[in-house]
Amino acid sequence: MNERLARYLPCLEWARQYDREAAGKDMLAAVIVTLMLIPQSLAYAMLAGLPPVVGLYASILPLLAYTLFGTSRTLAVGPVAVVSLMTAAALAPLFSAGSAEYAGAAMLLALLSGVILLLMAVLRLGFLANFLSHPVISGFISASGLLIALGQLKHIFGIKADGENAPEQLWSLLSALPDTHLPTLIIGATCLLFLFGMRSKGNAWLRALGVPARLASHLTKAGPVLALLVSILAVSLLGLAEQGVKVVGVVPSGLPSLTLPTLDGALALQLLPAALLISLIGFVESVSVGQTLAAKRRQRIEPNQELVALGGANVAAALSGGFPVTGGFARSVVNFDAGAQTPLAGALTAVGIALTVLFFTPLFENLPHAVLAATIIVAVLGLVDLGALQRTWRYSRQDAIAMAATMLGVLLIGVEAGILLGVGLSLLLFLWRTSQPHIAVVGQLPGSEHFRNVERFAVVESPSVLSVRVDESLYFPNARYLEDRIAELVGQHPKARHLVLMCPGVNLIDASALESLETIATRLQASGIQLHLSEVKGPVMDHLHQSEFLQHFGGQVFLSQFEALAALDPETTQRALSLRRDMAKT
Amino acid sequence: MNERLARYLPCLEWARQYDREAAGKDMLAAVIVTLMLIPQSLAYAMLAGLPPVVGLYASILPLLAYTLFGTSRTLAVGPVAVVSLMTAAALAPLFSAGSAEYAGAAMLLALLSGVILLLMAVLRLGFLANFLSHPVISGFISASGLLIALGQLKHIFGIKADGENAPEQLWSLLSALPDTHLPTLIIGATCLLFLFGMRSKGNAWLRALGVPARLASHLTKAGPVLALLVSILAVSLLGLAEQGVKVVGVVPSGLPSLTLPTLDGALALQLLPAALLISLIGFVESVSVGQTLAAKRRQRIEPNQELVALGGANVAAALSGGFPVTGGFARSVVNFDAGAQTPLAGALTAVGIALTVLFFTPLFENLPHAVLAATIIVAVLGLVDLGALQRTWRYSRQDAIAMAATMLGVLLIGVEAGILLGVGLSLLLFLWRTSQPHIAVVGQLPGSEHFRNVERFAVVESPSVLSVRVDESLYFPNARYLEDRIAELVGQHPKARHLVLMCPGVNLIDASALESLETIATRLQASGIQLHLSEVKGPVMDHLHQSEFLQHFGGQVFLSQFEALAALDPETTQRALSLRRDMAKT
Repeated sequence: MNERLARYLPCLEWARQYDREAAGKDMLAAVIVTLMLIPQSLAYAMLAGLPPVVGLYASILPLLAYTLFGTSRTLAVGPVAVVSLMTAAALAPLFSAGSAEYAGAAMLLALLSGVILLLMAVLRLGFLANFLSHPVISGFISASGLLIALGQLKHIFGIKADGENAPEQLWSLLSALPDTHLPTLIIGATCLLFLFGMRSKGNAWLRALGVPARLASHLTKAGPVLALLVSILAVSLLGLAEQGVKVVGVVPSGLPSLTLPTLDGALALQLLPAALLISLIGFVESVSVGQTLAAKRRQRIEPNQELVALGGANVAAALSGGFPVTGGFARSVVNFDAGAQTPLAGALTAVGIALTVLFFTPLFENLPHAVLAATIIVAVLGLVDLGALQRTWRYSRQDAIAMAATMLGVLLIGVEAGILLGVGLSLLLFLWRTSQPHIAVVGQLPGSEHFRNVERFAVVESPSVLSVRVDESLYFPNARYLEDRIAELVGQHPKARHLVLMCPGVNLIDASALESLETIATRLQASGIQLHLSEVKGPVMDHLHQSEFLQHFGGQVFLSQFEALAALDPETTQRALSLRRDMAKT
Repeated sequence: MNERLARYLPCLEWARQYDREAAGKDMLAAVIVTLMLIPQSLAYAMLAGLPPVVGLYASILPLLAYTLFGTSRTLAVGPVAVVSLMTAAALAPLFSAGSAEYAGAAMLLALLSGVILLLMAVLRLGFLANFLSHPVISGFISASGLLIALGQLKHIFGIKADGENAPEQLWSLLSALPDTHLPTLIIGATCLLFLFGMRSKGNAWLRALGVPARLASHLTKAGPVLALLVSILAVSLLGLAEQGVKVVGVVPSGLPSLTLPTLDGALALQLLPAALLISLIGFVESVSVGQTLAAKRRQRIEPNQELVALGGANVAAALSGGFPVTGGFARSVVNFDAGAQTPLAGALTAVGIALTVLFFTPLFENLPHAVLAATIIVAVLGLVDLGALQRTWRYSRQDAIAMAATMLGVLLIGVEAGILLGVGLSLLLFLWRTSQPHIAVVGQLPGSEHFRNVERFAVVESPSVLSVRVDESLYFPNARYLEDRIAELVGQHPKARHLVLMCPGVNLIDASALESLETIATRLQASGIQLHLSEVKGPVMDHLHQSEFLQHFGGQVFLSQFEALAALDPETTQRALSLRRDMAKT
């Protein structure tokens, strides 16, 4: 019982060995992650079309839920860029950003996403994430990064711009450029330069100033918080808000109240596809970060339990006025590097954010949107990897096509359309790739019992027995191809009386392929040819015994191709065996 | 040039050798098929929600198009039950049956379907049909047959009934039973009994009367025509139409005029999914009939050219006031049995139908709907094969689930929903099935250079080298599983310093799997383990050389697992080699 409980509550395990040293390390990590998470959660809420404080709400209870249920020791959960973009894409067409309905729908989306993840855990549906191939995810994230960065530029320039897709956004942005608000642009551009500088050279600068390596690394992570504080100070002292610099405005203080989102069935149905994609993308990203970090300390994460933990985190987000969350890449790496030992670091981060919501929200009144936008841009441009397209193209054209389609779909049509296009295309290309397996006519190597491809070797072919080798499992993507190909081969061998299908490479025969084999046997019989099998693997044979195929098809199953030929055309077989190996070579 | 032309116009080939004997046989077949096609085309038009004469229109030009472009010598094209049902399902929600808009939309649907088939031919997309696995098609056709038969019962009882799905139809039918129109029921039931009798015992009856076997077989096929004539006679003589027996009514005579369907872009977009499904189902069914018949005479059909021919047939249907058509099963078998030698039999059938439209339409004025309904019911119940579900269940649970879902979907939700559900579920189950390939830890067989599964054999394992064999191609459905599984194995072997992945069963490594291998290599390095590969197949190795993986992953690629172990842990390897084969067995 205890063991089963520990499987569903991994916290029971690490809590038992928890000591003072771990607590110290967790505390340090929590402080650093909190400083990083404050600007990120405010910014990603803005990206999702929500009041910034909602980002803080989404960084309290969800972190506690993950602490209880998560199997990764160092994953840092909360609002992340891509999921926030997907949230905005799902809700923007339905409600006006900032409205109460919009916020309610965001909670509902988190609830749906949480329930989907929990269902996936219960029904063991984690394999669904396999629909998202690496090229599709990579293309999706790069294009999302570009789309997010593009969408934030309006805040940097202090202008209004909008659009359904990247070209529209770009056009709208360019058209509005003459309206640029100079004070905003100065703040935004300075902040962008500072953050890019901190990101790329901050470590070197600080160490040049004599700061120890470890501390320098931690301090660079606090760059966004510094930008926040300086900009708030500047806005307050110079009265920039009155001059038209857009700021966050009054932020309610106090913890979010626990409420269930309005359970609107029709709306829930409408949000379901988006919730499903958000769940899958969030799960894949989170598990991939978790695995990478766990490997560094030879720990393990349990993907199915991660579904539970992320599901719990999203339900918690829904109940506390938040929006969909998942494990974040940059944040988790920082948590790991800062020395977090257990998920308790996450709980301590939650405490940090809770204190912020309770006591520091008045601070954010004068926080400029431009600074939040700069935070987002710097964070997401790190996700963009256009070189991946070229690398993938060199390795596999088909995968590169799926990746490019995903990227173009995201940029030109929309986030959901892009990912669906990518998934659809990778399934199509997969079917195409496996629909024509290698099928070779084989003949006997002179002086041996071996059979080889007639196109590559000088072999002896029996005039009455056609030997065909299939180098792939037989299942629905290629079942019909097998029918076509055998019809073609039989047409080319008018004298054949037997056809032996050699199956050493067949790991599976599914119901479609079984039906095709029956069809093939019937058609062959109609044209006076008997089908036989040879070298069928044990498990496949066990399976065939459960059907009536073996009784019906009228042929035999031979242990080897040689036995088949020896039985069906002993004369040719013996003659081939008696030949010297090199004699048939011409 | 001539050869290329002949590929696209297969008629050029058989026309060259056409002689008097073939002409006689084609003519006989055409007469029999015409007699069979007249009631069927009237009935299937009614099933599609169209005026019966439209069925005749759809049986003239499309047949000529197939004669020109088709590669099957004996396929009989025209309206078929399942496609007619799909047409009704697509159009009924949009327009009221019998309206001019409905008929126009049916033409547009045929045009779309034709264009899709032609595009599939040009873009070589015939493999798309592979999405429809055998269990899905089988389930779809059985359920469609039931749904069609159920939908026709109202005509037999002379009542009004309707419903979006099978239970609704059944309920509506039962509720309306008190309104049964007795004269209609008598005609309908008599006709049903007669047709079922002819179908199952007609041959025996006629032969008992001394009719020769071949003629008897032909005559039974004319059963529906006989029912038509007798019922028309009865209705006319007894004035049954005036007593409320529903009849076809005035049928315009004369050939259909050639017109383009109204090209309504918005409507076309709306009909596109239905057109795509109709094209795929029609293609799969038609090719399967064509292959089966061709095999009986050792002929071949060319699936890609069949796309052209069926595309042409549907465009022809669209231009001549028809609706979607394809190759019909029963009709083609009759054509074959009657001795048709070339597609000219189809052209002659078209002439027969054209003559009917020109001269005999006044005959059909008094044709009762109940008789057409009986024709449909007898035809479609022959398609229902519920035993297939049980047979498939015994062979493969997953395939049976996909089949059952398709059937339930068709019956409870609708035709399109059913097929989409089936396709979706078979893809899901396929992913699930291939997402967890067999991955075994292997060790050295004492006294040999062979490596076998540690769970099945008494083998020697190196403490520092973990040997893992993968028995499946590595691609996106299982890429992440490989990551998880290796993380798990490494967790279980804390002393390992090397991991050798043995790849004799890997036929492909796609971009997702390559990414996973890179991730695995990086994670292993982070925990102090070096990844190596062994027994990589030539084509896979060629492919890997196109990526930077081999330079980056830091390990070696060994020709055999033995070489790998000999290099990485020579001590254990030599010790194992020196053991007697049976010594390690305990």
